[in-house]
Amino acid sequence: MSLKLNTIAFDADDTLWQNEQFFRWTEARFAELLSDHAETDHLTERLHEAEKRNLGHYGFGIKGFTLSMIETAIEVTDQKVPASVISEIIRAGQEMLSHPIELLPGVEETVGALAENHHILLITKGDLLDQERKLAQSGLGELFDGVEIVSDKKAPVYAEIFTRHKVAPEAAMMVGNSLKSDVIPVLEAGGWGVHVPHDLTWVFEHADPPVNHPRFLEIPSLGALPEAIDRLR
Amino acid sequence: MSLKLNTIAFDADDTLWQNEQFFRWTEARFAELLSDHAETDHLTERLHEAEKRNLGHYGFGIKGFTLSMIETAIEVTDQKVPASVISEIIRAGQEMLSHPIELLPGVEETVGALAENHHILLITKGDLLDQERKLAQSGLGELFDGVEIVSDKKAPVYAEIFTRHKVAPEAAMMVGNSLKSDVIPVLEAGGWGVHVPHDLTWVFEHADPPVNHPRFLEIPSLGALPEAIDRLR
Repeated sequence: MSLKLNTIAFDADDTLWQNEQFFRWTEARFAELLSDHAETDHLTERLHEAEKRNLGHYGFGIKGFTLSMIETAIEVTDQKVPASVISEIIRAGQEMLSHPIELLPGVEETVGALAENHHILLITKGDLLDQERKLAQSGLGELFDGVEIVSDKKAPVYAEIFTRHKVAPEAAMMVGNSLKSDVIPVLEAGGWGVHVPHDLTWVFEHADPPVNHPRFLEIPSLGALPEAIDRLR
Repeated sequence: MSLKLNTIAFDADDTLWQNEQFFRWTEARFAELLSDHAETDHLTERLHEAEKRNLGHYGFGIKGFTLSMIETAIEVTDQKVPASVISEIIRAGQEMLSHPIELLPGVEETVGALAENHHILLITKGDLLDQERKLAQSGLGELFDGVEIVSDKKAPVYAEIFTRHKVAPEAAMMVGNSLKSDVIPVLEAGGWGVHVPHDLTWVFEHADPPVNHPRFLEIPSLGALPEAIDRLR
């Protein structure tokens, strides 16, 4: 096979650095704050429902998550939640927005090595300022030839990005932990999709893996990417 | 003077369509919701303080504004605000996120006419999804060669955008209602800055106009832009 790969795009959250763990910790804290009013399981379920319901209004990110937590707290307590608990929820959201970045293993070396002979992009969704803050803090900024913070990751969004960066889809690869957002839409757009599973993946990002797709790869960790690409050439 | 203008960038909120009025209406509704607890003036002041304090966490946009309203409601009531009022605040924020777009007069014709012989950009700040929604709803999308939704509008941000679009700063013009965000940083970056005042401008966007700056213009409304540009040539 002659591989014409010149562009490698990376997802950010839970591909380059930890993210979902902060949501899980905050969900646990949220459940504790409301433990007098509802069972943990029930609460998490109600919170996910609120997040889903509000996605069209808020999009992805911590600010919308915080607003959905507040809404859920009011709902599950029949409007009896004390304002002090709402204050704690706001504080928890702000702490998420200022948590220090924690790079995943092998990220710096792998992206650095691939940057030597590929055009390297970052394609991420979430709150604009929050994603910029994390990128700045990661110290990886210089490695990327382009940073795309998008409101959602669908096939036409990837197609538009590839066009804008003047790369043919078949010469572009997207690498990420979400089959739903990072892999499947890129395959649809004609590119390569590489799945790097993360232990924690948001319930909304679950999807079935493609079967026998010629441009789909799964690797155990980001460090395995250069070798996986070499095997394709 | 030989004007080498090939790129015109427009701010969106309160330059192409109404925005600040929705914030003012929501502030009034917020004051009414809390009228038993605080005077309107005092409330607005406390809200602006919260917005300012939270800008580093939330950036610009309606989601952060909603969170700041909730925080202020808790503060001014000494944690006595009922959850039903918080619900109303969340609802007010969601209504802002779904209000129909209202184009300012002359926008479509003016941008359309200038698009015939200029590269046209949109440069706006705020929540990503919300700005995309408004642009889609405005029907102006096709007129823009590039859309840049940024977390803040500072000189280096404009310089980076001009570089990426391969336009020399002196051939670029930014048009908007905010001296602080749309005009002064663009002049600093070496471009042309055109101020189109709007009756309502957010308190954080106030700044003194440049004095005798060779690349600064002020026009009464967007419809006056083509003629103002012709006068420069």
